[in-house]
Amino acid sequence: MRTLDVALGDRAYPIHIGSGLLTQAELIKPYLKRPRVAIVTNDVVGPLYLAPLTASLEAAGVKVTPIVLPDGEANKNWETLNLIFTGLLEARAERSITMIALGGGVVGDMTGFAAACYQRGVPFIQIPTTLLSQVDSSVGGKTAINHPLGKNMIGAFYQPKLVLADVGSLKTLPIAELRAGLAEVIKHALIRDASRVEWLEQNMDGLLACDQTLMAEAVEWNCRIKATVVAADETEQGERAHLNLGHTFGHAIETGMGYGEWLHGEAVAAGTVMAAELSARMGYLSAADVQRVVRLLDKAGLPTKGPSLGGAARYIEYMRHDKKVADGALRLILLKKIGEAFISDAASIAQIEGAIEACCK
Amino acid sequence: MRTLDVALGDRAYPIHIGSGLLTQAELIKPYLKRPRVAIVTNDVVGPLYLAPLTASLEAAGVKVTPIVLPDGEANKNWETLNLIFTGLLEARAERSITMIALGGGVVGDMTGFAAACYQRGVPFIQIPTTLLSQVDSSVGGKTAINHPLGKNMIGAFYQPKLVLADVGSLKTLPIAELRAGLAEVIKHALIRDASRVEWLEQNMDGLLACDQTLMAEAVEWNCRIKATVVAADETEQGERAHLNLGHTFGHAIETGMGYGEWLHGEAVAAGTVMAAELSARMGYLSAADVQRVVRLLDKAGLPTKGPSLGGAARYIEYMRHDKKVADGALRLILLKKIGEAFISDAASIAQIEGAIEACCK
Repeated sequence: MRTLDVALGDRAYPIHIGSGLLTQAELIKPYLKRPRVAIVTNDVVGPLYLAPLTASLEAAGVKVTPIVLPDGEANKNWETLNLIFTGLLEARAERSITMIALGGGVVGDMTGFAAACYQRGVPFIQIPTTLLSQVDSSVGGKTAINHPLGKNMIGAFYQPKLVLADVGSLKTLPIAELRAGLAEVIKHALIRDASRVEWLEQNMDGLLACDQTLMAEAVEWNCRIKATVVAADETEQGERAHLNLGHTFGHAIETGMGYGEWLHGEAVAAGTVMAAELSARMGYLSAADVQRVVRLLDKAGLPTKGPSLGGAARYIEYMRHDKKVADGALRLILLKKIGEAFISDAASIAQIEGAIEACCK
Repeated sequence: MRTLDVALGDRAYPIHIGSGLLTQAELIKPYLKRPRVAIVTNDVVGPLYLAPLTASLEAAGVKVTPIVLPDGEANKNWETLNLIFTGLLEARAERSITMIALGGGVVGDMTGFAAACYQRGVPFIQIPTTLLSQVDSSVGGKTAINHPLGKNMIGAFYQPKLVLADVGSLKTLPIAELRAGLAEVIKHALIRDASRVEWLEQNMDGLLACDQTLMAEAVEWNCRIKATVVAADETEQGERAHLNLGHTFGHAIETGMGYGEWLHGEAVAAGTVMAAELSARMGYLSAADVQRVVRLLDKAGLPTKGPSLGGAARYIEYMRHDKKVADGALRLILLKKIGEAFISDAASIAQIEGAIEACCK
């Protein structure tokens, strides 16, 4: 088992990474105020992992209340969140209960937000079961639900007490979701660590085969990169924006195609190529660097070209609606070189459109 | 104008107290990130104060989005909270907007919670317009909405950037609500400051006539007492419980009668007499002390006897359901003497029942 400490002052917490952690209640018990938890999961992950996790906790003397939500981003809303509150209240859960999120990003976001709000805040533990949630949402403390007028508009910054990243659970993940998770993995290397770009080039086949040792190593260095960025900027005022490499372009793809058509990671992959292409046009990357980014994403089985969406101008329009665009100025995350990101609002609309057009089908 | 600083480290904020502050936009402007606010109010307070506040802010160059909610505790729920989010999103409010709560406790609780959650947190300012909210909810950072299965079950600890307590707005307050606010005023004196009990005995007539100078003085010392208690215990682990003097008994009255039958302050008044009576039976207060508490509440026009509710045993049952009662033990706030509260779980059920019976109609 590998352990990484996320340093956030009095809200610091450890991430344990390894295979089979899900049934090791002794890892969880030291973090409980009382032997009383509510496990929140969904109707896809629940049938796979709720029973073994519950059995392990009960054998350790912990009383468990299960709360099973309908799966999917479409259910990341108030009505589903309220199922959690109702489940807690019906079980007479007190402030000393600990909530456990068992599932992917949606379960983590909703459980974390419910924990932030229930009786004005109870502790929670994350057990992410997808690659995306293990390398992304398990670090950062962002929790939220969607509003009909905007994604992730209602939420809180709220840190877990503990994260258990069981790479064994990735074996049951659909391959498309594994690939989508790899998009964020590649992104982390690109913004911070050129040596990890090389590592990915060498180990991509093993990762796609879900090799447990390689996967644990990947999850660890990804969490480390994200933790470093987040610790420097917990509430997203500056540097944390680097994590949005490819995301503003990707947001345009997701919005333009209608949410759910492209997986988030797929949109980020195509968006990352656009950001790399724009970085080249701004004089930072070489054409060879851009090709290296394309090859790596391609090796992971991710799209490297965006949909046309009716032209670059339409892309720009969607990008302007992204909440990351303040005051109408298009601030984008670019690459100074492979392994180093920066924030720029220097690109002209013509330059951005040119980069989009070069990277669309 | 009087100013009190609530010391909460990096979440410290000032409370300005005086008459006519509501139209002094220059007091508000230094606290805005950008000249952009959303004013949340209700359909009772809005017609009285929304226009002058808006005019003052607009004259100072601040863009205002008004959001008017239906009045009343019955609307302190998700559906009404969502009206705030929808209003903000329709106005394309960014993270730099400041939310202003204009109204009583319900408006303050909901606006504060909405501010805590909108885009994971935007700043907010409180302009409490009732005595209860000026002396109570404007200090402490407690925000919440109700769930069908429990009051204030969903919320956050979230501090305002500024509180403007305009005692001029108390002139339009129904007398029953003014009296209910005085119940908390009397409670603050009883738990912390015997000299203010005397001050209240001398000045109750002026307060009931809404004398502006007396009222500003009262709001100031009340906020000071509450701020001292809260600063010592921001997330309610210990000492802050002293503020619940009379509240566990009062909770039984509110629940037993059905919410809305007794105003919260009225229930707290009768509950305070029960707590004083129990303190006497436990050997802390004299019979004369208890009579002094009764006389003061009576002078404020508040009830000093509770409803029968079918007997003391029924009271105990309701009190056990109060969330302040952990693990089945009845922990109550008692008076060691006039001006000094303490937490006790030493009272036997027979003693508690005796005190209740002595203080019921």
